[in-house]
Amino acid sequence: MSPPALEQACSRIGFSLVAAPGDPVLGALLTAHDPAEVWTALRAGSPPPAPPPGLRRTALDARWSRWCGAARRAEPEPVLTRAADLGLRLVLPGGPEWPCQLDDLAESRPYALWIRGGGDLRRAALRSVAVVGSRAASEYGLHVASEMGHALALRGWSVISGGAYGVDAAAHRGAVAAGRAATVVVLPCGADLGCPRGNERLFDDVAAQGALIAELPPGTTPTRRGFLVRNRLIAALTPGTVVVEAGRRSGALNTATHAEALHRTVMAVPGPVTSALSAGCHLLLRDRQAVCVTGASEVIEQVGPIGADLARPGSRTSREQLDGLARRVLEQVPPRSGAGPAAIAAKADCDIDTALRQLGLLAAAGFVERATGGWRAVSPEGSDGEA
Amino acid sequence: MSPPALEQACSRIGFSLVAAPGDPVLGALLTAHDPAEVWTALRAGSPPPAPPPGLRRTALDARWSRWCGAARRAEPEPVLTRAADLGLRLVLPGGPEWPCQLDDLAESRPYALWIRGGGDLRRAALRSVAVVGSRAASEYGLHVASEMGHALALRGWSVISGGAYGVDAAAHRGAVAAGRAATVVVLPCGADLGCPRGNERLFDDVAAQGALIAELPPGTTPTRRGFLVRNRLIAALTPGTVVVEAGRRSGALNTATHAEALHRTVMAVPGPVTSALSAGCHLLLRDRQAVCVTGASEVIEQVGPIGADLARPGSRTSREQLDGLARRVLEQVPPRSGAGPAAIAAKADCDIDTALRQLGLLAAAGFVERATGGWRAVSPEGSDGEA
Repeated sequence: MSPPALEQACSRIGFSLVAAPGDPVLGALLTAHDPAEVWTALRAGSPPPAPPPGLRRTALDARWSRWCGAARRAEPEPVLTRAADLGLRLVLPGGPEWPCQLDDLAESRPYALWIRGGGDLRRAALRSVAVVGSRAASEYGLHVASEMGHALALRGWSVISGGAYGVDAAAHRGAVAAGRAATVVVLPCGADLGCPRGNERLFDDVAAQGALIAELPPGTTPTRRGFLVRNRLIAALTPGTVVVEAGRRSGALNTATHAEALHRTVMAVPGPVTSALSAGCHLLLRDRQAVCVTGASEVIEQVGPIGADLARPGSRTSREQLDGLARRVLEQVPPRSGAGPAAIAAKADCDIDTALRQLGLLAAAGFVERATGGWRAVSPEGSDGEA
Repeated sequence: MSPPALEQACSRIGFSLVAAPGDPVLGALLTAHDPAEVWTALRAGSPPPAPPPGLRRTALDARWSRWCGAARRAEPEPVLTRAADLGLRLVLPGGPEWPCQLDDLAESRPYALWIRGGGDLRRAALRSVAVVGSRAASEYGLHVASEMGHALALRGWSVISGGAYGVDAAAHRGAVAAGRAATVVVLPCGADLGCPRGNERLFDDVAAQGALIAELPPGTTPTRRGFLVRNRLIAALTPGTVVVEAGRRSGALNTATHAEALHRTVMAVPGPVTSALSAGCHLLLRDRQAVCVTGASEVIEQVGPIGADLARPGSRTSREQLDGLARRVLEQVPPRSGAGPAAIAAKADCDIDTALRQLGLLAAAGFVERATGGWRAVSPEGSDGEA
């Protein structure tokens, strides 16, 4: 690793050692300042850099001194060495394997991701669906999740989900059995740990043909809050989230809420109205927050309409493959400084929600990326530099 | 019966003997001419009266000679006598028991209705829900239908449905068991027959606390087309139709299509995606043609929002009980000659669909009625004259 790359890596590992994952104050600071400089200031106990517009000085000060104390004791470099020994690799924002969809998280974007397994995360996320649901799933939920994971994988779509018992595990198992697309487990703990332990065998299978990813440093055990914070990654990585089975208070509804806030497609699988485990799905349907889907083809119909052959595995989508609406939106995205979604929507003659949906899909296909003030077009050659 | 009333009754019975139920050509003719005059002309074999605008002369001529032939042989008066012997009563458009929601059917409005049972049809329809679904229902569908019928009846809502095995019968059985609201069977055959025979016991129970209704004359056996034509009555009588369980080609979807065309609320109960018997419901949900409902309270939430206490059984809704939107629409409905829904919508500052929905509910509550050219307000005293 080159010295500047090592510096970038260590500062981002450092953040994960001192701040909560997705901390919005640190996230806001990093949109305005170089991560290495922020880390150096924390280590040195210097005063905080100028907060960007929208971030209150008092909110920053309140955290800064705590972070300084933790940063003095933190040792990022040994973490990097240990992770390498454990077979984990570090992926940084803007790097070649970084899924740019995560940039939609803005201030709550992860500092970095740890990956276990050989699957290319960026490619997997391009053509992926989040399949989520209850831990205490019914036979029905397990059956539907595993069928859906299997059918999605057979058609070259990656399943992205947590690693919990129930719907998560069933969806991954179905996908693994198909053996045609990477399946991605997003962990609420260190990528070396895997949680729960009982799914270790599944995690080994996933590592063999997909990836396990985590934003927490290796060795970190999961917390209750960790699960909820992790859900935003599942929602952000994919163009759509399917809730297979969920009670009225299921964590899967939290993932659906993140997906909706990120202008992703939210889908729900109906079930018997006599089953409390489907009540959350029915709630999403009744409130028209989710589209009703009964199988993988209907899911793909919902998330795959940007172009006939979007992101066929191993191929790059060309501009010509985009449909009329996607092309119209893309034409309004400036190449250098970002444009806001409202301005893009107005020029492309569509509403903001439509524009945001299309921008999300265009970002997934590598045509546009987040920039200061909105979105900018990516040059056709592809630039994988630091974002 | 007074001679003019008898003449009206006999001409309408006559139509049902010579023309198909809901024949749009005869229906159009009756919007412009007095039924008794039309019937006299048919009996005499006179040339047809002038077709109203929109009805082609050739379409009328093609049917007219056939109707004349049949009218010469038809004998309406004995039908009336026989019906009275069978305990059936005849309800004519505009009469005291006529549900004015049926006027929304315009050209396909039934010529008349035969009723068996003591329930007041007009009152029952005011606060009613159509509960429809497959004949070959699953245990799940039967359970949901009967629970829903029961819960609706307990809350004073009438169930309106066909009399078929499966969902129809289960919904009626649930309602009969509650014994709190009239349940209404709409038959595809004569009201004296009941169809299928196997539900005769149920029909007796319905007659005891509700009504069986038919637009075909007594003694008429059902035809395949008769079932489909009948479905428009189920949809038109109610402010909303719930599809409990339906395959992709179920007749219940035909009722849902009628309901949508009539601007009624369409609802669907989800079920296991592994059940082909729920595929029709899921189709309605996916295409956002139907709202997802899981029980009677959610159904009532959908169809009962016009006023807090709309049509509590035995009480009349007062203007003060209407909500803001309903009152705004009502204020724009002229008292004498009808106004079109577009004009009403523009003045009430809402879209046409909303206006039509509100007009339907206002009609159900007796505030407005269909008139030439659109809708007119009903005077507070209530006028039940011929429409």
